[in-house]
Formats: sequence, structure tokens, C-alpha cells
Amino acid sequence: MALLVEKTTSGREYKVKDMSQADFGRLEIELAEVEMPGLMSCRTEFGPSQPFKGAKITGSLHMTIQTAVLIETLTALGAEVRWCSCNIFSTQDHAASAIARDSAAVFAWKGETLQEYWWCTERALDWGPGGGPDLIVDDGGDATLLIHEGVKAEEEFKKSGTLPDPASTDNAEFQIVLTIIRDGLKTDPTKYTKMKERLVGVSEETTTGVKRLYQMQANGTLLFPAINVNDSVTKSKFDNLYGCRHSLPDGLMRATDVMIAGKVAVVCGYGDVGKGCAAAMKQAGARVIVTEIDPICALQALMEGLQVLTLEDVVSDADIFVTTTGNKDIIMVSHMKKMKNNAIVCNIGHFDNEIDMLGLETYPGVKRITIKPQTDRWVFPETNKGIIVLAEGRLMNLGCATGHPSFVMSCSFTNQVIAQLELWKEKSTGKYEKKVYVLPKHLDEKVAALHLGKLGAKLTKLSKDQADYISVPVEGPYKPPHYRY
Amino acid sequence: MALLVEKTTSGREYKVKDMSQADFGRLEIELAEVEMPGLMSCRTEFGPSQPFKGAKITGSLHMTIQTAVLIETLTALGAEVRWCSCNIFSTQDHAASAIARDSAAVFAWKGETLQEYWWCTERALDWGPGGGPDLIVDDGGDATLLIHEGVKAEEEFKKSGTLPDPASTDNAEFQIVLTIIRDGLKTDPTKYTKMKERLVGVSEETTTGVKRLYQMQANGTLLFPAINVNDSVTKSKFDNLYGCRHSLPDGLMRATDVMIAGKVAVVCGYGDVGKGCAAAMKQAGARVIVTEIDPICALQALMEGLQVLTLEDVVSDADIFVTTTGNKDIIMVSHMKKMKNNAIVCNIGHFDNEIDMLGLETYPGVKRITIKPQTDRWVFPETNKGIIVLAEGRLMNLGCATGHPSFVMSCSFTNQVIAQLELWKEKSTGKYEKKVYVLPKHLDEKVAALHLGKLGAKLTKLSKDQADYISVPVEGPYKPPHYRY
Amino acid sequence: MALLVEKTTSGREYKVKDMSQADFGRLEIELAEVEMPGLMSCRTEFGPSQPFKGAKITGSLHMTIQTAVLIETLTALGAEVRWCSCNIFSTQDHAASAIARDSAAVFAWKGETLQEYWWCTERALDWGPGGGPDLIVDDGGDATLLIHEGVKAEEEFKKSGTLPDPASTDNAEFQIVLTIIRDGLKTDPTKYTKMKERLVGVSEETTTGVKRLYQMQANGTLLFPAINVNDSVTKSKFDNLYGCRHSLPDGLMRATDVMIAGKVAVVCGYGDVGKGCAAAMKQAGARVIVTEIDPICALQALMEGLQVLTLEDVVSDADIFVTTTGNKDIIMVSHMKKMKNNAIVCNIGHFDNEIDMLGLETYPGVKRITIKPQTDRWVFPETNKGIIVLAEGRLMNLGCATGHPSFVMSCSFTNQVIAQLELWKEKSTGKYEKKVYVLPKHLDEKVAALHLGKLGAKLTKLSKDQADYISVPVEGPYKPPHYRY
Amino acid sequence: MALLVEKTTSGREYKVKDMSQADFGRLEIELAEVEMPGLMSCRTEFGPSQPFKGAKITGSLHMTIQTAVLIETLTALGAEVRWCSCNIFSTQDHAASAIARDSAAVFAWKGETLQEYWWCTERALDWGPGGGPDLIVDDGGDATLLIHEGVKAEEEFKKSGTLPDPASTDNAEFQIVLTIIRDGLKTDPTKYTKMKERLVGVSEETTTGVKRLYQMQANGTLLFPAINVNDSVTKSKFDNLYGCRHSLPDGLMRATDVMIAGKVAVVCGYGDVGKGCAAAMKQAGARVIVTEIDPICALQALMEGLQVLTLEDVVSDADIFVTTTGNKDIIMVSHMKKMKNNAIVCNIGHFDNEIDMLGLETYPGVKRITIKPQTDRWVFPETNKGIIVLAEGRLMNLGCATGHPSFVMSCSFTNQVIAQLELWKEKSTGKYEKKVYVLPKHLDEKVAALHLGKLGAKLTKLSKDQADYISVPVEGPYKPPHYRY
Repeated sequence: MALLVEKTTSGREYKVKDMSQADFGRLEIELAEVEMPGLMSCRTEFGPSQPFKGAKITGSLHMTIQTAVLIETLTALGAEVRWCSCNIFSTQDHAASAIARDSAAVFAWKGETLQEYWWCTERALDWGPGGGPDLIVDDGGDATLLIHEGVKAEEEFKKSGTLPDPASTDNAEFQIVLTIIRDGLKTDPTKYTKMKERLVGVSEETTTGVKRLYQMQANGTLLFPAINVNDSVTKSKFDNLYGCRHSLPDGLMRATDVMIAGKVAVVCGYGDVGKGCAAAMKQAGARVIVTEIDPICALQALMEGLQVLTLEDVVSDADIFVTTTGNKDIIMVSHMKKMKNNAIVCNIGHFDNEIDMLGLETYPGVKRITIKPQTDRWVFPETNKGIIVLAEGRLMNLGCATGHPSFVMSCSFTNQVIAQLELWKEKSTGKYEKKVYVLPKHLDEKVAALHLGKLGAKLTKLSKDQADYISVPVEGPYKPPHYRY
Repeated sequence: MALLVEKTTSGREYKVKDMSQADFGRLEIELAEVEMPGLMSCRTEFGPSQPFKGAKITGSLHMTIQTAVLIETLTALGAEVRWCSCNIFSTQDHAASAIARDSAAVFAWKGETLQEYWWCTERALDWGPGGGPDLIVDDGGDATLLIHEGVKAEEEFKKSGTLPDPASTDNAEFQIVLTIIRDGLKTDPTKYTKMKERLVGVSEETTTGVKRLYQMQANGTLLFPAINVNDSVTKSKFDNLYGCRHSLPDGLMRATDVMIAGKVAVVCGYGDVGKGCAAAMKQAGARVIVTEIDPICALQALMEGLQVLTLEDVVSDADIFVTTTGNKDIIMVSHMKKMKNNAIVCNIGHFDNEIDMLGLETYPGVKRITIKPQTDRWVFPETNKGIIVLAEGRLMNLGCATGHPSFVMSCSFTNQVIAQLELWKEKSTGKYEKKVYVLPKHLDEKVAALHLGKLGAKLTKLSKDQADYISVPVEGPYKPPHYRY
Repeated sequence: MALLVEKTTSGREYKVKDMSQADFGRLEIELAEVEMPGLMSCRTEFGPSQPFKGAKITGSLHMTIQTAVLIETLTALGAEVRWCSCNIFSTQDHAASAIARDSAAVFAWKGETLQEYWWCTERALDWGPGGGPDLIVDDGGDATLLIHEGVKAEEEFKKSGTLPDPASTDNAEFQIVLTIIRDGLKTDPTKYTKMKERLVGVSEETTTGVKRLYQMQANGTLLFPAINVNDSVTKSKFDNLYGCRHSLPDGLMRATDVMIAGKVAVVCGYGDVGKGCAAAMKQAGARVIVTEIDPICALQALMEGLQVLTLEDVVSDADIFVTTTGNKDIIMVSHMKKMKNNAIVCNIGHFDNEIDMLGLETYPGVKRITIKPQTDRWVFPETNKGIIVLAEGRLMNLGCATGHPSFVMSCSFTNQVIAQLELWKEKSTGKYEKKVYVLPKHLDEKVAALHLGKLGAKLTKLSKDQADYISVPVEGPYKPPHYRY
Repeated sequence: MALLVEKTTSGREYKVKDMSQADFGRLEIELAEVEMPGLMSCRTEFGPSQPFKGAKITGSLHMTIQTAVLIETLTALGAEVRWCSCNIFSTQDHAASAIARDSAAVFAWKGETLQEYWWCTERALDWGPGGGPDLIVDDGGDATLLIHEGVKAEEEFKKSGTLPDPASTDNAEFQIVLTIIRDGLKTDPTKYTKMKERLVGVSEETTTGVKRLYQMQANGTLLFPAINVNDSVTKSKFDNLYGCRHSLPDGLMRATDVMIAGKVAVVCGYGDVGKGCAAAMKQAGARVIVTEIDPICALQALMEGLQVLTLEDVVSDADIFVTTTGNKDIIMVSHMKKMKNNAIVCNIGHFDNEIDMLGLETYPGVKRITIKPQTDRWVFPETNKGIIVLAEGRLMNLGCATGHPSFVMSCSFTNQVIAQLELWKEKSTGKYEKKVYVLPKHLDEKVAALHLGKLGAKLTKLSKDQADYISVPVEGPYKPPHYRY
């Protein structure tokens, strides 16, 4: 692989698709700023005191226009930043180039290979001889994973001299990870160990990444403190729900122009993401069928007038299939074979293992017809019927459209900024151990409050008497921790 | 007060409106059973082993048809039961009489005075010389309150010989409570003390009652274990939300026949109940305005296209006002004076202090015109304009209609049965201390699962491999405790 | 039959259930007036000139609170009025008694037998020796039918001396009609002939009645002019649609308290009424399946995400069945036998021949259990499963609830008043022949305009330039006749 | 202007953007065919008999993928076709090139100047020495307009020798039309006269074009028969309504990525298009305010819970403005000045005179910042606030997205094919005079029926007895002509 890091005139490193798109990116960033009141008021509130002065932050998070506003909020608060995307298709190249030119080191482009993807991740983590990062902004946990795997390998190497063996796994992507670590070990056998020692903590964005963190916490293998941003109410109940309600139809329309009204849409999973997807499809006039493993979520779907069946029950009748489960092996090639001609199959969950792409790619005689990038028709030889797979089974809203809109991402990213501020502020106090934390509720409420004015809302104020009656402070927080919203 | 307890031929005590309605009640109970699969399968699963054998259960919970099915589930499992309603307007007289005739001691009728109400509560708690109750099923916490206040007074009396003084409070209802306790003290100065010593625990149904329990837990004054049934997902996210979505328009239509489409509806509070109410009004074609103190809930309302303003902003323009806050002093007489002619004012929260009925009743020159029971027009002398107040500011869905429908109450009440079973089973193990507990998630999921078949749903089953991937057991529970649904 | 006409102290005739309900009726009439701005502004605009001075109006239209406001609008404009209901279950007794006491001759009560029903119709048409009526307000066409059948019989009798023979028909209701006419012929052989000669015209309210009128027009048998009020946009696209969207769930909830969310509802017919019903069920959280014969309406249903199947496809799976077709023989006893236990079967179309009540009643061994008036459970002997039939197959929204709400009925009834005014004004000009007419569009627009202020709406005004550009007058009408809204 | 017509190897003329996109166009055409069952079954039913053999058809209709399927249906039935787009931004270049390469003469590309636009229209009408067209497929009426203006000019020239004077009008676009006609007159003074003599008729697609035709019919200036396809139910109640419900959010998202939830959207006009737009915005979580001149449409909006106000009332508060009126001068620069920063202003009506683009462009000191093609930010100098105007005020769904989806366009275009077949079949019978006609209802129903199978619907069949009861043929049509659906 001959990927070369480039440098701006000021000497900052980057690797993006096309630097000439930076002006376009800047224009869209300026539009997004108006839609992101949470981030903009972080700049107003915290900018003057430069709380991130001296902090080196690595981000692994879809390099979109919205993320650009996040990055420039971090830099406006004093941080130095390096960034990569957390999905091979999710970068918006104009956003990447504007940031690379103006604000931070970026290694990201739309349509990376998996090898390029991990090269980018490595670059984002590589702060050179001065060391770093101090903080990680993660989405899906790949930056965190690389460090944990790196440390594991370095420890083994130190102990036994054994190098990691890519051939030890069937998983093509993990082979690449191991290769990178192996190759790195040869030049610096303590690279990741030094990294984890310096690291103040990570704030993690999404359900899937959070799941990994809790597993590591349970196993006792977590190497640094983590703040679970996903489970802020203003993240999981907004971005996951309202973001997907917006971006699922957006992705479908941009990729296929299909009329959603009148169609049968199957939504696999009825968590926050699935709820948003099902609502979007219902509102657009589709008939929605949900598949679920959890009886509570299933009953919620029923209460909204949605049918709950298994994929097997409906696989031959539906027109659109969306996976939202965060689990794996949801739609297998054996299902795809039974689908109607030109059924649309897509995934909006974080990882690309919900749809059996490997099974599809290796199906004997299958024919792939690329309609346009991220929109492929796969034709089965027996039936000559095809299915349309979006974004090669990866996050279709980022692969085929532009992801979640700015306003809802402002909620998510304001949580990220607050989490990073918290970790950095407490870096020497020992407040955060090697565990997973959520933000306190008053900060969650603050994030929401920052987004009300833009929408013309006016809050009611509790009187002292009323506050006492329900046993809360006048200024909040207003709900017990277990409250579900 | 000359209320006389009556007795059935079998000797069971009761006091209901009209025993001749028992047959009608029985017919509706039979219809409800078909809609309450959770309760009915409790009967099938647990009936044969008679787990409540020997248990004396007192219930203070709206004496409706659905509650009748709950009561007969408790008796089918072996319990002996005494019951009162927890709201002066919420009893369905045919349900009360059917249960009184066939199954349990009932003290309840629609339209009790407050004095009658507390007399009924006292009767339901009075198990005679044999002692009791062993368990309480509570809704709003009035039975629990009476015992706690009783014990407090008895302790004081024992210590200082002082009797409670009804004149010590402004609150008319609390004066009645103190009077009852005072009068009881004269005949048996350890009545409530004996009661609390015997009591195995209480399971509490609603947000407001749960709030009281947590306050007592915090103050260290809770006298027996409590299970918070309200915060089972299958209770608060179903009964509170979908129940109110059903019963708010039901109550409005039965009380006023008003066309909801085209109207402006103000929903005060956007918790679970408020969400259900706002959804119902929006779906029926009203324009909905929400008032909120909590910025997160406010932002949720905005994401659904609802306007968020203060009551003052909209008080003169709206047609329908609903309080759902669980707080007090929400709609004051000063607001009501400014409303449009024939604006409808109602409350769907547990207690009747959300609407300033006292202020209204004592407003100089105000005129009350009773259209029909639970529907009053109050005319202000200055303007000659009237407002329509439902159920005298009490729970309008129970006062003006029949409350929540059977299916969703089956979810709530199955939680109640499970909680009661749990308390009873562990009565001697010390598992439950004088604290507030919630049911474990696997039981919550079980409640949901019992309700899927009736609606024709089919669950997907996790493979072992998938379960491991997301770190859950194949058979659940499927979510972490903080999951918000 | 010993039905006796009663008289008020002023000598006006009536026959109602219970005159003591008149005060209650008056209170609800006053509430309704606030919700019926169209009718009230007719009183303001036309009252002073007393345009109906000397006019005798007979109405055959559901004797509800809303109709009471219509009647008192007619009398406020100078008319003398006699009234009957057009459905045996649709009278609201308090409304009937208030009108009987205060304003017009009423012959109506809830729960008439068919014999009583036609006796009431005859009474409403009987203006005594002075002759009359001059005008008819009809709904479903029964008053018009009786006159047409009466005239036909009188002509035959005059020609051949033959009396109508009730035994000549199988239809039980038509036997009653023929009996009434036969008996009348004996005392006055030109009663209906004189009536039709005096009659200025009829205004007809509903789809079914209009259909009859067009058939008579096509056959050349129509005896007097008719204005089709149903096809005013402000009638059929409002009352039929939004009225049913309101009153279907109202009727279901009052009759059965069933939870609609999660259920499968089958709506037979997707015309204006069916569209309202389907929308109501969908919004309440049901899954809706439509049956249709018309491919255009079927495609509309599909575009709203509704499934379109035949009754046979879904008869065993659905929970709620509503007929809205205006056709006959929609749900037969053979269907009912296959339904789930406690499936709810009801009709919201004008006539009671959509559901095969005769087949059900005569089914061998079937058992009828009356839960409460208008709510019956019918149990089939083979399966011991029951179905719940509302209002004996008649209009369930009027039988089980209170029909459409005042606001939307104000639209319909303002059309009625305008139609009656038009017929009366033109009584001597020959403008209206023995044909069926619709109101001109500018009057339709006027009806709508009268209802905007109540809902706080503000219209935009066309400039002259804009009006010219789209070739309409500045003050309207704004649309071509074929415009569909 | 140096536009050069190019030729395929087979000698067919064309002028498109980029012939290399033809393969991509072909792939998308093939996808669209699966979604357009109406057109495909026209091919099956009529293809073998080649009914258009010898017919030369000119189309002026958005040159999209869906139109490509229409064109190839016409050619599959034997026609020879020349085509231009009816909007400067609506061409999809890959569709144009695929058709140009494979099927018909195309003159269209995305982003024509107005001069290029009329050059294309002229080319599409120019069938060379053999004469033609025989038939016109029109959308908005520009092809029809050019012929009518041409004939008028030729008659004047013949009479008086006067040439049309472009300076006689202020309208920049009409100056171009007159210039084209004037220049043509010099070479062939009977070009348009010959054209109109040969012309069998036109079928017109849209509300605006139909309005023009009815005006010409009223003035007696219509030169050939016209079929109003717009007012087929399966056109105006589907394409206009459901098409816009789909394509408005699509256009907004592609152009601006704005989050619609929580925003205030103003929809100007509540006809079929406005209804679709308002529904889309409401469903996406916006708060919708409607402006209307017609009280009936206004009342419909109110019944759906939408607020009805004037533009002046809300211009400073709203976030998104959409014009759907078919009228002119709806949003003027004086409105735009008052809007919030980054308010979005767009039009989805046929012509670009709803938004005052001229006023905006000539506003002193205004600054235009092109974010990307068809998305401009216009900044006012006084406030430094900008508004975002889509597609330069032209049809935003075609300018910023891909227009209506295939399925609903299949309904519209099947009407077009049937209308063209009808005109051609009756070309010598005199059935159609120089008037405007709509298709008979049985054909409208047929169009709908052709689209049911694709969505899995099953129609119920009337029995003979039922059909007789409602006086319709068993096989339809099922509704009277005035029925509104």
C-alpha cells in the first residue's frame, strides 16, 4: 500500500480525496453551524477560557459536515485534533478537505478500502514523537479497539516474543488489524502501551461501541476511562431515533428513487434506530412489518399498529428490508434468494455484519450490476431476479445520503464536547477510573436546553413550592436516573 | 356519617351502589378476560399451586371492570381480598357489585364524598380480629399513607398521649384522614402498628404513589418493603402512554361530544402520560401545544412537531387543556378566567391538585352549571363566559369514561400479580427490606411476552451465536437496566 | 299499536321518551350552539327577515342535539317544524324532549320498533287539515319514500281500487310501509297526492338518500325538486370523512371499551366514510385492512399504507369489522361464523343491510347475550365463540355514541338551511324542476367560510391581478365544478 | 446561439449533455420499468397491434427516467417520437442520453438557459419536411403555447405583414418566444399553421397547462382537441398528492440536508400539491402552517390539525416556505427580507413565478452565494441575513431531486398513453372537437387497476345483485362523474 500523507502549507498532515472541494465544504459547514446551536454555544461559553489548551484529541467518527463543526468546536476550545472516519463510505469529501485545509489533520475519504480505512485510523492515532492522543472521540470503538489489540500484542510480544498472526483469524478485517499491529511492533514495540498510558479517556458515540466498552469493563480489560455518550438521553433518544427517521428515507430516495408509499417495509429490530426507521416508513405510506427478539419492543411495535413477524414469514412479500439490530447475521443470502425482484436490502446499524454480504458475494453464479456507487443490483442465476443492496451492506444513510441532519447531531456532539471537557478537566483527580460512565443528568438536560431556542420553544419554570412538591431542585435535574423518556 | 357495611349471603362484607348491576358487571368482566391474556395466563400458570393460600390482600385501586379481573386473578391464586377504589369517581358500579357478590369484599361506588372515600379505605384495611392485610395493592399510595400516618399517630400517642388534631392542617382531605385516625385511636391504639408489623409489603401502581415511596425511603420512614410496579417498562411505557392515548379522547367525547379536529389542545406535561395525550389529540386532528419544565421532554415534543410554550402564552387561544404533570397548581383560577368561552379543562394525572378547583369554587360570583355528572360549566361573573371542567378536576378518563382499556391494563396488572407473588414468596427470606424495588427485567419481558399472541405477533429467536455476540442469554433479558425503550 | 300523541301546554304535538330530560337537553343544545357557527350565523344573517314565514317543514333526520340546533335555526327563520328521526336508535332523548317542549313537534325516541319508527314518520308528515309540509329535510330518504309510495298506491287505488298488499313483499320493513299506506288510504285516498302537490321540495342529507333520488330522476318518477346536500363539498368531504373519523372510535369505546391499539381492523369500503374510519383506526394504533370494489379507492388506500384484501382473506384474523359501503350483504352470517371469539362487527353506513342481521338472528342455535343496549354478543353453537354486534347492525356511531360532533354537523346543516332557503325562495319561479340539484359552489365556499373564525384561521386574499391570472373572481368561487378537493 | 443538433449513427437527431451517461440511464430505466406496471402492461396489451404506427409524437415533459419509460412505451406501440423537457432544470442527463441513443430524438439537458429551453422546444416540434407532429404530449403547455402564438403571428403576418415584436413585452421569457417565432416567420411563414392543421390533438399533464387550455376553450382560440389528463383521478389525486408528498422532502434533503423535525414549515396553497406537501412536512415532524384563499381548502387544513394563517403572520417565524399555488406573486422579496437567517424558500408549482426571483435578483446590494447547483444563499445587505432559495424558484423536486417516483408517474403516464391512443384512434371520426376533454371514468379505473397487483392488493368483486342495488355495472365504472374521491 503506497498511501502518502500530504501536508498543508502550515505543515499539518492530511490525506483526503480532493482539496479543491474545501470551499464547498466551508459553505456547507457555515450552513450547518446555524443548525447546531449546542456546539455553537459551547464555543461561546467555553471558547474564551481555552479549556482544551494542550489537549491532543484523536477522533474516529464519520467525517461529515456535522463532524466538521464538532472538530472546529474542539479546536475553538484549544484542542489539537487528528481525525479519521469510522466507516469506509461515510466521509463527505468536501467536509474532509475543508477541515484538512483549515483546522485539523484529517485522514478520510468516501470509498476507502478496508486497508485504507485502518491506515487512516492508525494515522489519526499517530501524534509523532511528542506522543498522544490525550483523548479519543470514538464512534463504534475502532480507535479504542486498535489500542487495546495493540497493547495486548505488545504485552504478548514482550512476554514471549510472539508477533500477532493475521492468519489466526477468518475475519478479513481483523486480519488487517493484526497486520498493522504486527508491522508496527517491528518498529516500535511499545507504541500502543505508551499511548494507553498517556490516554486520559475516550468518549464513545454509538450503541455498538458502548456494548464493546461494557464487555471490556466486565472482563476487566478496559485500559482507560470511558464516557458512554450514546446513553445520554439527548443522544440515543434523539440521534438514533429522529436522526434515522430522517436519514433512512433520505438514503432510500437518493439511492433508488423508489416510491415508499404502498410498499411493504420490513424493519429488523425495534430499538431506538428501528423505531425511527419504522416511523419513517409508516409516515411515508409504507406498510411496516417489524422483526424483534425482545417481547417488550415487539409489544411497542404492535401498539403503533405495526405487524410483528419473523423474517421468514415475510421475506418473499416485502419490498424494502432494513436492518437496525446491532446484531449479526440478520439477513442471510438464503433470505435474499427468496426476495421479490428488485427488493431493496439495506443496513442502518453501525457494523456491516447484519447483512450477509460475504454469502452474497460468494454465491455461485451471482451477478453484480452497479447502478451507481453504493447502489448495486445482485442477480441470482436460478431466478434471474435481482435484489438491490445499498452501500454494500454498510450504514446506508451515510453511504447513500449524508447521514443525520445537523440539528440532531448537534445534540449528540454537544454531549461529546461535554464528555471530553469532563475527562480533560478531571484528568488528574482520579474521578474517572477504568470504567464506563454516563454523563450526569443535569448535563443531559443542559444539552437539550441549548437546542430549544432555535425551535422557538419556551420552557415553563417550576416554582419553589412545586419543585419541593416533586422533590427536585428548581433548576433540575428533573427526573430520577431510571426515567425512560 | 351513617355508612353501613352490608353482607352477602355467604357473610362477606361489602358496600356498593347497586347489587342489581352484578349480572351486567359479570358480562363485562367476561368480555374483559378475553382482552387480558396476561392475567388469564397467570391463572393458568399459578392457579393449580394456589400460591396465595392464606394471604390476605387489601387493594386500593380504581374499582373497574379491569380491576375485577385482577381481583379474581388474586382469588384464583388463593388469596382472600378486600378492596376499595383510589378515586371518588373511578368506580364502575357494575364491576363493584359483581365482585362484591362473587369474589371479594368491596367498598366502592362512583361519586363518593371524601369522607366516604376514606371510610372505604379504612374498611378495606380492616380484616377484623384475625388481623391483616398481609399484602397491599396500592395505586397512588392512599392505603400506604393511612397506615404510615396511623403508625405515626399511634407512636406519638404512646409517647405523649397526644391525639392527632385535624385542625392542624388546612388541607380538607388530610383533616379527614386525621379524624379517622384519631377516632380509631380511641378504640384501638395499636391498630396500625399491628398492621405494619404483619405487612409483608406493598406493590404500587402509579407515578405519584411511587414518588411518595421514594420520599419515604429517602427519609427512612418507609415501614415495609415496596415494589414499584409503575416503573416496569410494561407498565409506565404502556399503561401511562397507550392507555392515556386511548382514554383521553374517550373521556372528552363522552363528557362533551366536542369535535377535537381543528381545535387547539394544550397538554401540560410531556412525560409518558403527556406523550399519550398529545399523540391522541394530534391524531384526532387537533393542533397541540405542550408546556414543560424539563428541556429533554420539551425537545422530544418539538421533534414530534408540537409547539412548546408556556400556559400564559396560550391560555386565551386554546380550546382544550389537559394536565398530566403529577405536580400541583398547574392551571389556576387566574388562568381559567382568561380562557375562551366553553374551553374544556381537565386533568388526567393521579391527584386532583393540578387544577385549582378550590380557587374556582371560591371565586366570587362564579356560577356552576352541571351539564351532567362530572361535566360542569363554570361561568365567571365578569365576562359571562364559562369553562367546562371535567370530573371536578379529578382523573377525567376514569371520571368521565371507563379508564384504560383492558388490554393495556392486563400489562399493568400482570406486573401487580407478579409483584405480589414475589413479595409473598419471599416473605420470610428477608430478600426485601424496607426499601423500594423494581421487578427484574426478565419478569418485565415475561409480561410483554404474555401479550403478544393475542395480537398475532411472532417473535424472532436469537441463535446462541447471536446471543453471545451481544452478550445476552438466548432467553433474555435482552437489555441493560438503563435501557429506555 | 297504541301510540298516543301528546300535547304541550301550548298545544303542540309530540311523542318522546321522557319530557323531564328537557332541561338537560337544553343545556347541551346551548353547548352545541357555541360549536355550530354556521347555523348561528344563519340566525344572525337571516333571522331578522323571517324568510321561512309561513313555511311548514317536516324533517326526518337523527333527532340529536345537533339536529336540535338545526331545528331551532329553521324556527328562528320563521318556519313551523315537525320532526322524526331517521333511525330507530339515533334519537337522543334529551334533545328530543327539549325541542318538543320548546320549539317543534317531535316524534322520536331512542329504541323505536320499526312500527313505531314509521308511525313517527307518518306523524311528522301529518300537518292536519291545513295541509303540509311545504318542505322536507330528509336523511336517507324515508320521508320522501313514504310520499312516493303513498302517491303510487293512491294512483293505483284510484285507477283500479286495489289496495297495497303487505304480503306482496318479503321485506319486513316494507310490509310496515305498505300497511301504513293501506290503512291511510281507507280514511283519505288522496292524502299523499295532496302532499306532493303542495311540496316545494326536499333537501337530502346523505349518500344513500341521494342515490335513491338520482334513481327516481333517472326513472322519471321523482315527484318534486330535490337538492342534494350530500354532495356539497362541505358536507360529504367533512361530515362523512371527519365526522366518522371522530364517531367510529367513540362508538367502539362506548360500546365495548376495547383497546384499538394493536388490533386488526377491517374497513369495508374506502369512500369518504371509509376513509374517515380507516384513518381513525390507524391513528388509534390498529392495523387496518380495507376491502374495496373500486380500483381507484383501493389504490388510495394503498398509498396510505393500508392493506387491500377481500373479506374472505382476513375474516378469521381481524378483531374489528366496520361496514361503510352503502351497499348490501357485505358481512354475511357465513363470515361471522369464521371470526375470532369476541370479534366486533358494526356498521356505520346509513342502512342496516350491510350486515346480515337476518342471517344471524335465524342461525340455528345461535344465542344472543345483551351486554347492554346496542351491544350484543352472539354465540355460535358449533364453536361456542361469540361475536359482538353493535347497534343491531344499524349506524353504530348514533346507536352506541352520540353521532358526529357539533362542529362538523354545523357544516352539513348549514348546507341544509341554505338549500331549504333556496327551495322556498324559488318556490314560484320554476327555477327548480322535478330534478336533483346541488348547491352552487359559492354557497359551498360560504359554508366553509362561516366555520373558519371559530378555529382561529385567517384567509389570504387574492389580488385582482392574481385572480385574473387564474381566471376566478376575487371573491370566488375559486375552483371549477369538477375540482375534487 | 450556436447550438448544434447532433445525430446518432442511425441518423436520429439529439442534443443532450453527455452521451456517455447512456448506460447509466439504461440501468435506471430498467429499474423504473419494474415500478411502472401501468406503462408496462400498455406495452403488453397494445404492443402487438402497433396502434401508433405512423404517428409522430412530440413531447414537452420533464426528461426524466420515468419519462424515458413513457417514451419507450410510445415507441413500443409504433410511434416516432421527438422530445424536450418542460423545465430548464428538470432533465436527468442520463435518462436523456439513454433515450437519445436508443429510442427517440431528445433535446434536453439539466440547466438550460431560457434561450436554450425554447430552442429545444422548437427542435422537438420540428419534424422536417415530412411534417408533424401528429400528437403532442404536453406538460405545462409550452409546446401548445408555441404553436398557438406561432399561428397567431403567422395570421397577423399574412394579414398585415407585421412581424411579432419581442420588445412589446416586459416578460423576458416571452420575448424569447416572440423572437423564435419572428425568426421562423422569415424562413417559413406557414410553419405553425401547417402544424396545427396536421395536429390531431394534445394531451396535457398538469394543472397549470390545463388552466391555459380551458381559457383558450373559453376564448374560442383553441386550435385542436385537447385531453386534460391532469384531472383524471389517477393523475391529480395521485401524482400531485402522493408524488409531492414524496418529492418535497427528497428535494429539501438533497439540497440542504436540513432537519425537518422541529421546524416550522409554511405551505402556500392547500390543493392536491399543497396537501401532499403539508402531509410530508407534518409527518417528518415539522409544525405546518398553511396559507389559502379558498375557505373549503382552508377548512380541510384545519381538520388535519394545521394552522391557517396569512404569509404576513408567519413570515418572520418559519423555517421552510413552499409555494404550491399555481398562482403568481406568492412570496415577494418584501417577504424574503423579513425571514429568519437561512430560511429555506422553494417552489413546487409548475411555473417559476410563485417566488419573486426578479425582485430578489434586482434587490440593491443583495449577494448570491451558490452553495451548489440549485442551492443558493441570498444575503440581504441591511441585515446580513441570508435565505436559501432552491432551484432558482423553479420546481424544486425536479431541480434539486429526481422528481416524482416511478410508481406514481406510471399512473400519470398511463393516462397519457391512453389519451394519446384515444386521440389517434379517433383522428378521423370527429369525436373530438377543438375542446378540452377528460378521459371517461372506466379508463381512469383501469389505470388504477393496473397498479394494484404490484402492491399485492386484491379487489372485492360486486355480485350482480349488489351492483344492481347501487345501480352500477358489475365491471364499473363505480362512481358518478362528480364523485370526489
